[in-house]
Amino acid sequence: MIRVGLLGCGTVGGGVVQLLRANAAYLEARVGASIEVARVVVRDVEKERVPELDRGTLTTDASVLLEDPSIDVVVEVMGGVDPARRLLLRAIEAGKQVVTANKMLLALHGGDLLETAKKRGVDLAFEGAVGGGIPVIRVLRDALASDSVASLSGIVNGTSNYILTRMQADGLSFEFALKEAQAKGYAEADPGLDVDGGDAAHKLAVLAMVAFGARLDGAQIPTEGIRGIEPVDHAFADRFGYVVKHLAVAKEKGAGLGRGGPLELRVHPALVAKDAVLANIHGVLNAIAIEGRALGPCLLSGRGAGDLPTAVSVVADIVDVAIAKKSGVAGQSTRAVRLAPRVLASMDDVESRYYFRFSVFDRPGVLARITGALGERGVSIEQMVQQGRGSGEVPVDVVMLTHESKESSVQAALRVIGASDFVARPPRMIRIH
Amino acid sequence: MIRVGLLGCGTVGGGVVQLLRANAAYLEARVGASIEVARVVVRDVEKERVPELDRGTLTTDASVLLEDPSIDVVVEVMGGVDPARRLLLRAIEAGKQVVTANKMLLALHGGDLLETAKKRGVDLAFEGAVGGGIPVIRVLRDALASDSVASLSGIVNGTSNYILTRMQADGLSFEFALKEAQAKGYAEADPGLDVDGGDAAHKLAVLAMVAFGARLDGAQIPTEGIRGIEPVDHAFADRFGYVVKHLAVAKEKGAGLGRGGPLELRVHPALVAKDAVLANIHGVLNAIAIEGRALGPCLLSGRGAGDLPTAVSVVADIVDVAIAKKSGVAGQSTRAVRLAPRVLASMDDVESRYYFRFSVFDRPGVLARITGALGERGVSIEQMVQQGRGSGEVPVDVVMLTHESKESSVQAALRVIGASDFVARPPRMIRIH
Repeated sequence: MIRVGLLGCGTVGGGVVQLLRANAAYLEARVGASIEVARVVVRDVEKERVPELDRGTLTTDASVLLEDPSIDVVVEVMGGVDPARRLLLRAIEAGKQVVTANKMLLALHGGDLLETAKKRGVDLAFEGAVGGGIPVIRVLRDALASDSVASLSGIVNGTSNYILTRMQADGLSFEFALKEAQAKGYAEADPGLDVDGGDAAHKLAVLAMVAFGARLDGAQIPTEGIRGIEPVDHAFADRFGYVVKHLAVAKEKGAGLGRGGPLELRVHPALVAKDAVLANIHGVLNAIAIEGRALGPCLLSGRGAGDLPTAVSVVADIVDVAIAKKSGVAGQSTRAVRLAPRVLASMDDVESRYYFRFSVFDRPGVLARITGALGERGVSIEQMVQQGRGSGEVPVDVVMLTHESKESSVQAALRVIGASDFVARPPRMIRIH
Repeated sequence: MIRVGLLGCGTVGGGVVQLLRANAAYLEARVGASIEVARVVVRDVEKERVPELDRGTLTTDASVLLEDPSIDVVVEVMGGVDPARRLLLRAIEAGKQVVTANKMLLALHGGDLLETAKKRGVDLAFEGAVGGGIPVIRVLRDALASDSVASLSGIVNGTSNYILTRMQADGLSFEFALKEAQAKGYAEADPGLDVDGGDAAHKLAVLAMVAFGARLDGAQIPTEGIRGIEPVDHAFADRFGYVVKHLAVAKEKGAGLGRGGPLELRVHPALVAKDAVLANIHGVLNAIAIEGRALGPCLLSGRGAGDLPTAVSVVADIVDVAIAKKSGVAGQSTRAVRLAPRVLASMDDVESRYYFRFSVFDRPGVLARITGALGERGVSIEQMVQQGRGSGEVPVDVVMLTHESKESSVQAALRVIGASDFVARPPRMIRIH
């Protein structure tokens, strides 16, 4: 028998308990042993839980679980950095197999946790941390065992994708779409972590750790959210054949083999061509597009959050580490981990095509000054459109799409244009994917 | 050390040799032992091979490999049903771990092979058999360990998808697009297995085996290819907001848990809404959309064929079975397999929306007769369009989209309409996904 201890029993933990019970016979055949939820650490033992839970297992004292030598697997589904980090480290030091779905913890301390697990000879599995029910971690780790990742780009925050989808489909404002998302339970009362890109940056840090062996601080990833996107940006994007999506992007420059040059990591809104698969990932769905050097393109999509999808991933991890424990090969998966600190490429060096929207007073010579400021810095225009004619007092939108340009040049040109007397407000810039 | 024997060394086999060599250090850390290609069975030992291959390992005698007790893993990449089937069974009986990428063999004899492997206590891995580099088998097996599949639908034949994509994008005829696919190496000189749907049916049989534990004869799956699709069908589909794709579909009726009612399996062209992800899988790419009962929707996409993508999948399988062998838990993956013969639902019972194109002589009362024949059988029209007006002698196209209807009623109505004097040729029917 494999005895599991749960740290936390909220919606994901409850889902794990349900799935383990509902699929007990199949899982026993699979693992070669039954899986029993033996201890569950919660804050409140009186609270109502899923009916599948044996209430005799509940305790408020994590030590009861961590110091119980009969517990084989510790599953952390409490969230947050501490005490989750401290408890997981204790579980690892106690030689237990560990599973977590905690992306923030992994983004900030994943390297430490993995190295500790490797030293202690236990497995640390975390499929549920990125993309909920999307099995991206195991695909990067197992399916691509003989390949290396050249780049990946993903829609990894369901809240932002829901808001952008609603803005695009029905012309809603950001504020209105956010309120709707909150009413439907897709966004928190404090939506900052989602709509300002922090959550996506956490997930990108975890993906980069698995895909590139990158040990890095998730807080250092250049990150922009979606608050600045307006309905008119969706309308212009549509006119040029694009949709606006919020992307997490990672690229390894050079020939690769996982130990290449600087790593380009960034999180920001982007224009995606309408017929690209990522453009057609709607609502709260997530998707991650991987480019393998041997495999070529590979895309995974599914529900990025939600109790049952994430619980499916957590149970898959429990099965993996239980099999390893049962077979006497605990630590096999962490033994192959080779993490190394990686230099992050500067945003200045990013090369991309760009969408600009300038809100300008329609006076003679304005266009010449804008294109001049861009041209002087080597930023060349591919397409341009001016929406109507202004009166000279009422600003009009001028939208331009550029050829491939360097971010530092673009930023320099936008600073000059933004400081000019003919613009009504700061220019809007969105990178084109 | 894990000693691997290859049965066959064509493009996929050569890719396997290359990837094992290029990633030797990482794979050794992963498996806990080095992986060596010790024997390679080929028809012609003189032929040029990939430079990574040690030519001293070549032999034309499969027995040299199968009777060598030092070989741990046998990898079949020769294709075709026999002798592949016979050789794999011998390898299994000899207690070797086995890997194959042979979809036709698995579609026709997968149940036997898996049961034999289970009895003998060895693993049989076959990620490369469906969707080339797309890790769909391990996702169904590992990631969904605690879930059950309600339905799946996929674009699993790259040749057909390339042809349909080219017809849709540039208005090419089927014949012209096929010739282009052949010129580019995407279609065989004899394209029947691809464009008539047989290859897709093989892959669907393998998917159904893994997703539903269905032991069935792949030859019994109702199968239609894409030969009958004309440019005008793409044009009408576009007008209604759809694209034409060739799909493999599986549905389990009832509450499920993997042992539900009849299994609906079918392969045919279908209209897919333009903003659905499957509609945006272009060219030779493949994609499989899975609906898990707990997981919800999950989509996987990537290169469906090609030597390196398929080799990446085969090497991932080699790593899995090598780890199991090394850990002394060979047979763990097949032990959990529970195959059962499954009743296939009759095509007559399929419920779907439909696209009809009637080529009719534009005479008074024709529309009334068509809609009458449909209405009498409970098939109701949702939209209709007539392309121009005929002279009474030159036929015109009338296209109709139906509400959800039963296949048997549709077929009965189409038989009556097809036999009428006002139609110039048999009606075209395409199901709407």
